[in-house]
Amino acid sequence: MASQPEGFNFEQMHGKQRVRVARVWKNKEGRHFFVEWNVNISLLSDCVNAYVHDDNSDIVATDTMKNTVYVKAKECSEQVSVEEFAILLAKHFTSFYHQVTHAIINIVEKPWERVYIDGQPHEHGFKLGSEKHTAEVILKKSGVIQLTSGVEGLALLKTTKSGFEGYIRDQYTALPETRERMLATEVTASWRYAYESLSSVPQKPQFFTDRYLDVKKDLVDTFYGPPKEGVYSPSVQNTLYLMAKSVLNRFPDISSIKLKMPNIHFLPVNLKNKDNQTIVKFADDVYLPTDEPHGSIQASLSRFWSKM
Amino acid sequence: MASQPEGFNFEQMHGKQRVRVARVWKNKEGRHFFVEWNVNISLLSDCVNAYVHDDNSDIVATDTMKNTVYVKAKECSEQVSVEEFAILLAKHFTSFYHQVTHAIINIVEKPWERVYIDGQPHEHGFKLGSEKHTAEVILKKSGVIQLTSGVEGLALLKTTKSGFEGYIRDQYTALPETRERMLATEVTASWRYAYESLSSVPQKPQFFTDRYLDVKKDLVDTFYGPPKEGVYSPSVQNTLYLMAKSVLNRFPDISSIKLKMPNIHFLPVNLKNKDNQTIVKFADDVYLPTDEPHGSIQASLSRFWSKM
Amino acid sequence: MASQPEGFNFEQMHGKQRVRVARVWKNKEGRHFFVEWNVNISLLSDCVNAYVHDDNSDIVATDTMKNTVYVKAKECSEQVSVEEFAILLAKHFTSFYHQVTHAIINIVEKPWERVYIDGQPHEHGFKLGSEKHTAEVILKKSGVIQLTSGVEGLALLKTTKSGFEGYIRDQYTALPETRERMLATEVTASWRYAYESLSSVPQKPQFFTDRYLDVKKDLVDTFYGPPKEGVYSPSVQNTLYLMAKSVLNRFPDISSIKLKMPNIHFLPVNLKNKDNQTIVKFADDVYLPTDEPHGSIQASLSRFWSKM
Amino acid sequence: MASQPEGFNFEQMHGKQRVRVARVWKNKEGRHFFVEWNVNISLLSDCVNAYVHDDNSDIVATDTMKNTVYVKAKECSEQVSVEEFAILLAKHFTSFYHQVTHAIINIVEKPWERVYIDGQPHEHGFKLGSEKHTAEVILKKSGVIQLTSGVEGLALLKTTKSGFEGYIRDQYTALPETRERMLATEVTASWRYAYESLSSVPQKPQFFTDRYLDVKKDLVDTFYGPPKEGVYSPSVQNTLYLMAKSVLNRFPDISSIKLKMPNIHFLPVNLKNKDNQTIVKFADDVYLPTDEPHGSIQASLSRFWSKM
Repeated sequence: MASQPEGFNFEQMHGKQRVRVARVWKNKEGRHFFVEWNVNISLLSDCVNAYVHDDNSDIVATDTMKNTVYVKAKECSEQVSVEEFAILLAKHFTSFYHQVTHAIINIVEKPWERVYIDGQPHEHGFKLGSEKHTAEVILKKSGVIQLTSGVEGLALLKTTKSGFEGYIRDQYTALPETRERMLATEVTASWRYAYESLSSVPQKPQFFTDRYLDVKKDLVDTFYGPPKEGVYSPSVQNTLYLMAKSVLNRFPDISSIKLKMPNIHFLPVNLKNKDNQTIVKFADDVYLPTDEPHGSIQASLSRFWSKM
Repeated sequence: MASQPEGFNFEQMHGKQRVRVARVWKNKEGRHFFVEWNVNISLLSDCVNAYVHDDNSDIVATDTMKNTVYVKAKECSEQVSVEEFAILLAKHFTSFYHQVTHAIINIVEKPWERVYIDGQPHEHGFKLGSEKHTAEVILKKSGVIQLTSGVEGLALLKTTKSGFEGYIRDQYTALPETRERMLATEVTASWRYAYESLSSVPQKPQFFTDRYLDVKKDLVDTFYGPPKEGVYSPSVQNTLYLMAKSVLNRFPDISSIKLKMPNIHFLPVNLKNKDNQTIVKFADDVYLPTDEPHGSIQASLSRFWSKM
Repeated sequence: MASQPEGFNFEQMHGKQRVRVARVWKNKEGRHFFVEWNVNISLLSDCVNAYVHDDNSDIVATDTMKNTVYVKAKECSEQVSVEEFAILLAKHFTSFYHQVTHAIINIVEKPWERVYIDGQPHEHGFKLGSEKHTAEVILKKSGVIQLTSGVEGLALLKTTKSGFEGYIRDQYTALPETRERMLATEVTASWRYAYESLSSVPQKPQFFTDRYLDVKKDLVDTFYGPPKEGVYSPSVQNTLYLMAKSVLNRFPDISSIKLKMPNIHFLPVNLKNKDNQTIVKFADDVYLPTDEPHGSIQASLSRFWSKM
Repeated sequence: MASQPEGFNFEQMHGKQRVRVARVWKNKEGRHFFVEWNVNISLLSDCVNAYVHDDNSDIVATDTMKNTVYVKAKECSEQVSVEEFAILLAKHFTSFYHQVTHAIINIVEKPWERVYIDGQPHEHGFKLGSEKHTAEVILKKSGVIQLTSGVEGLALLKTTKSGFEGYIRDQYTALPETRERMLATEVTASWRYAYESLSSVPQKPQFFTDRYLDVKKDLVDTFYGPPKEGVYSPSVQNTLYLMAKSVLNRFPDISSIKLKMPNIHFLPVNLKNKDNQTIVKFADDVYLPTDEPHGSIQASLSRFWSKM
């Protein structure tokens, strides 16, 4: 929220971070459904007097924001997707408070998955999985919305069908060119839906949960290629681009996608001892995995102009 | 390693921690197998002169230990379990160096799992899962071994069939008794095998990997109970005990098991506003999950005397 | 770097993160000077062919970027500030590679501080302190620069002279108004210097290190108020604003400052037992500190228009 | 707590971890004193029926333990050291509950330090420092006590006066011998006091706080040596031993000390490019700091027999 107090330009927002909530739903057959969310709320609101004149009368207390998360979770009598819940919160804050012009809601869903025992789904048992579903809603009082879903912590690795050749080679270059290396990354993806107003957002239950699973599968399948042959990756850059393009080509209601794909290095191990004798000679077998340093490759692809 | 320099009692060990190594194996059909390990080495050795007299002549340099991890990984021409690799390292250090009387090797395996695409296993694609397989070997120069396997980060939750009643109620007690609550934990388990000498350890390839999967399944199944009905847990204590007992009853070559099962609280949400009006009334539906504080319950169960 | 391949809009950057480097300098009197930096490099460059056409010929390998950090650290024959080092790297990448149009360099300095023993500075001994000095340089090939310094992890707390009253009170509000509470935060600050081109940046050695210490002192002093009386804080918002304003008023070459000041809650402890008897009654003495959830207050104040 | 249910040996304990509490005290002159503690409680108690027979009647609920922390913090009308508070809690649990035979209390104190503004101590302002004061009390119902204090996160570094020579050199050895290297570590120390019963523990206010500062100073001074000359370290092992010995020699009421001093490596940077040209040649100036892997050196020194 921008303003001009005392001759300065001033922008501010406030909110509540790390509001954790879990919700259980039960159907008539006794099956339980369960989600756990970590909710982050930021409000842009007309409350500059709190900053400049010690007047809190336009401030939504962050404690009140926290309470609202629980009230709204309670009100969800049917299971909702993380995107729906984010929208529901954003609608509340922008409509209930005249001071609030924008609400920014970020939620990370903890990857609890229904347990299967000997192939049977458990009615009330859940186990933690790996990568996380995320959602972000930016909603203006007017109803204009930016709705973004994503995944974080999606760690993928292939032991072959990756190389890196033909890059700039100068006096600071030491890396040898190769057509055979390990490729490992931890994908953070976020894709923005084309829905631009609250009224245009699909209402079908679990629509966005299904879409999340479909996009994730598309990203994963493109990364690995077919089960038998795989697909050759000439660079993280190219693999990233193909993943992004596949999503845009397949899902017409996604207008842009942003991918962060760090190149997590698995260094070939070659060792010599003090007498300069080779004690380990690399043959695509022994690697030193390291997180530090790592390459960083990120890009956004969009149908229309969108800012990374 | 204990000694008595300068009138003191002195115990010491040294080693190398966080040695990361990854190993790829390929079979004739072109399928890749892959592990990533984080290796921790501690040696008890006869090197007190380094501490007391500035004489390093009995010190195995920790850099040398690190190199050895890569040399030994290279030497594994066939896939080995994490337990086998730990044994192999321990054998090396206790036999190669006359100064080394005990080797303690701890390894955590990163949970890379083969990817399936549309039901087909991928030849060289791997994705990170959740809980981790661990192994610890304590080996004496004599060949006496303590071999322990484990799992860490095994997060389990059930949304019903849990209660807590009849505990001590005194002036500091505020917790209400209940027969209906959420039960969530993150299991750290370690089970010690009965094999007491190097020569008695099973040599069958992947023996310990299979055993790991079986023990984990037993722990998980006991925690949840049958898919339809589940099983009532009167306390984390009781659930832990049944899990431990089930493992000992089922696997005769496991002599003891230790379980740490924090009680990760999902607090019922009841909220009143400033006017003392109820705005959220709990009905087994809305919870506040929290890691801090958490209950801690740990125990070890053994056939014979074993120290926790 | 934006482009329009295959009918899409595309923006990309790549770089190397977490490049750690330490540098020692020695003066004639035998005193050592020491810094440890964690360097993050991102380049915007003309290399879309790597993404779209498997052609890496315009790619600066991230391994080369890493090497460059060490080469440039070596070249610094005199001690440089973290800002100077960031500029030096940015200059290199934008001038050495015709493909590179922008370099973004972020560095975090580890807070090693010279040790004092009985009041005497140690010639070569350093101990880790707490909050960290950060620097960001965004440099265009043209020489246009954005130079930002900052501090992170600056945890401040005062046990009184803080309150929060007069905020919006509605049906979701439970928080009581107060003129007496604990105020705790962990400040992340970043301030942008007014220098807009490489040539205008001050060359005086350690200029930016001194400035960092001065800005930090100004922020801290404003937060606490005078040693005896302190200063009353009617809201985190107001305290944040006064801190930002003080910096802009005092340092004319700083054009804007951004502050993130989470409200880290110390909850008053009031406890009743199961018989509804009070067992702890709060009297500004016993608190439950918690990181989750926390309030989030952030703002930027600038002389001229600047985007948060 | 050991028992023999159903033909097994069984050991168990339960407690509450991460109970956070802060306490403010004020003196007549208006000066505030402040501590923040993270309390961990484990009880050994006679409650095997909860595990084996679903009978919770001997269980101290962990929620009750948590409440007790707040009750006892409230009862401290004068400032107490972290050791005193741990003792006070342990006394309560072992005396109040007939089932409890041992209490183990671990507390970490957050390093809040009084702020000085222009040399003046602030009456109510505190800032977070670096290393942390820890305390552990193990108390039996009989009054037999083990009282241990410690420090964690004490990161020390010296840029010279360190070497490593004369160690075992074999076919796996690659490390060159040196008399000039960086020495960096993060000390975790714990020292056990000789007081063996509750009644013998000193009652003087802040006795253990002063002792903590004195022991820490002794460790630090021994690590660095005199401000001008420093002291040559032939190995981490030797430096560790001298630190431990100095503490035991100086403080007669400390019966043993345990030190963990990881060797955090600062690797000399030597780089060649693809054409085998040297681009960085190490001259005790440019280092690559790394946490992974690191050497681990730990030892305990005691006047009488004590177990590491």
